[in-house]
Amino acid sequence: MSETLPIPTVHTVADLRAIVSGWKSDGKTVGFVPTMGALHAGHISLIDIAKSRADKTVASVFVNPKQFAPGEDFGAYPRTLPDDAARLAAAGCDLLYAPNGPEMYPDGFATSVHVGGPSQELETRFRPHFFDGVATVVTKLFTQVRPDCAVFGEKDYQQLLVITRLAADLDLDVDIIPGPVVREADGLALSSRNVYLSPENRVRAVRLNALLFSCAEALEKGEPISGTLNTARMIAESAFDLVDYIEVRCAETLSALPGPVLDRPARILAAIRLGDTRLIDNVAAHPA
Amino acid sequence: MSETLPIPTVHTVADLRAIVSGWKSDGKTVGFVPTMGALHAGHISLIDIAKSRADKTVASVFVNPKQFAPGEDFGAYPRTLPDDAARLAAAGCDLLYAPNGPEMYPDGFATSVHVGGPSQELETRFRPHFFDGVATVVTKLFTQVRPDCAVFGEKDYQQLLVITRLAADLDLDVDIIPGPVVREADGLALSSRNVYLSPENRVRAVRLNALLFSCAEALEKGEPISGTLNTARMIAESAFDLVDYIEVRCAETLSALPGPVLDRPARILAAIRLGDTRLIDNVAAHPA
Repeated sequence: MSETLPIPTVHTVADLRAIVSGWKSDGKTVGFVPTMGALHAGHISLIDIAKSRADKTVASVFVNPKQFAPGEDFGAYPRTLPDDAARLAAAGCDLLYAPNGPEMYPDGFATSVHVGGPSQELETRFRPHFFDGVATVVTKLFTQVRPDCAVFGEKDYQQLLVITRLAADLDLDVDIIPGPVVREADGLALSSRNVYLSPENRVRAVRLNALLFSCAEALEKGEPISGTLNTARMIAESAFDLVDYIEVRCAETLSALPGPVLDRPARILAAIRLGDTRLIDNVAAHPA
Repeated sequence: MSETLPIPTVHTVADLRAIVSGWKSDGKTVGFVPTMGALHAGHISLIDIAKSRADKTVASVFVNPKQFAPGEDFGAYPRTLPDDAARLAAAGCDLLYAPNGPEMYPDGFATSVHVGGPSQELETRFRPHFFDGVATVVTKLFTQVRPDCAVFGEKDYQQLLVITRLAADLDLDVDIIPGPVVREADGLALSSRNVYLSPENRVRAVRLNALLFSCAEALEKGEPISGTLNTARMIAESAFDLVDYIEVRCAETLSALPGPVLDRPARILAAIRLGDTRLIDNVAAHPA
C-alpha cells in the first residue's frame, strides 16, 4: 500500500487480490478500467461507467512495454502517477493498481497472447505487434483483478473489439463495456498523446474528427463508399503530414463492407501523423 | 448433466461454473486433471494426487484439435468416454467436464497462447504448433474450472514445464503439481497411444525406457554427456524405426547443460517412432 497517494493504491498482485477477494466475499461486484496513466477526462468517463455498473471500481496504471515497438514512444510516454491518483480519487474510484515492470514481467517471462480476427489490418499494418502486447497485458490484468466487467474506450475501437474477442475466447468471464469517445470542445478526441502536439499541430489536429464526421454524413446520405473514402484520403493527405489509413469497416467485425453504399452499422477509422505524433480517431456511421 | 454416466458430468462452461462455484462458496478447494481421455492408470495416478491435495477433484476429457497438426492422429485418437467416466468414478473423482468442440472453439474463435522458454526445441522441432495448442486449451480450461491446483504427468515433461511457465506468466493462480511417470511392469511408460502398437512393436517399445535408464545410470556415474548421448543415439537408431531426439537437459529449464559431465539435476528426454506410432519418455538423472 502507498500511504502518500490520495487513493488506496497497491503495487503487487498479492495485495490486489487480498482487497478484491475481500470485496467478493462481501458479495460486491467489481468494475475495472485498465489504463496507461496520463489520465484525462476520457479515462474518467470510463471510471464513471464502471461505477454505474459495479459496486467497486479498480483502475490500473501500467505503461505496458510489450505494446510499444522499438522506436515508438515507450520511454517518452507521459508518467504522472500522483496526478492520476488525484483524478481517480476525485472520480470516486475505489482502488488504484500500479504494478511495476518486474511484477508484470518477471525474469523468465515467456508467454504471449495473440488475437486474430478483428486485430487484422488497420492498426496492425502499422504496429504489427501492438495487439499481441495489449492482449497479453489485458489477459494478465483480468486474471489478476478478476473483475465482473471492464470498460474500454471506443477511441481505440479496434482494441475494444480485440479485447471483446479475447475475453470470450479465453473464457475470462468479464463483460466488456464500451465507453464513447470523449472530445474537446472543437471535436479533437482526448488522448494522452495530445500533449505531444505543438501549438500549430494542435490546430491542424482538429481536422481529423471534422473529416471523419463529414465522411459519416456523406455515407449516411447514401453516397458511395469508395468515392467518399478517396475524397477523404485526398483531403487528409493535404491536411496531415502522413496518413496511415482511413477506412470504413463493419462496426461489429471490422471486416470490409461489400459496398457500394452503407448497408450495415459501420465505423470510419483513421490514423494520421502530425509531426512525430500519431493520432487515431473513429466515428460511427449508420445506414439510413 | 449426463444421466447415463456413472459420475456427475457437465458439458458446458455454465454448468461447470455452477458446480465449482458452489463448492468454492462452501470453502472447498478444487484440484483439476485435464486429459484427452483414453484414460489409463497413469491418469488415475494424477486423480489420486489431486484428491490428496484438494477437497474436490475435476477431470476434463477433451481431445483438443489445436494440438494436432494435419496428418497427426486427431481423427484416430481413441475416444472412450463411457469407459473414462467409469474409471473416474471408481477413482473417486467428483466431476467430469467433457466439453464438445464448439463449446471450446465457437465460430469466430481467434485467440492463441504462445509460451516460449521451455517450449523451445525437443517436441517443438517435430511438432511446431503443439505447445501453442496445449497452452491455448489449458489457459481456457484453467479460466473455466478455476482450480486451486492442477496435476500434470511427468511423462510429458516438457509440457509440464510449459504449463508451469504459462500458469505463472498469465497469473492463473493455479499450483501446478507434477505426477511421476507410471510404467508397465516391463518399464514402458503408460500412454494412450500404446494401443496403436502392434504386438511386435510393443515388444520393441520396452527398449526405450531401458535405454533412458541406462543413460541416466552412466551420467550419474560421471561419464561424459556427449559420449553417452552418442552411444544412446546409435543404439536407438538400430532399435527403433526413427529417432526424433534423445537429449539431456536441465531439469528445471530444459536448457542445454554446459557439460562435459552432469553438474545439476537433469532430465533425459527422447521421442522415437515404431511403425506409425510416436512414443516419448523421459527419466531423471542427478549428479553424484
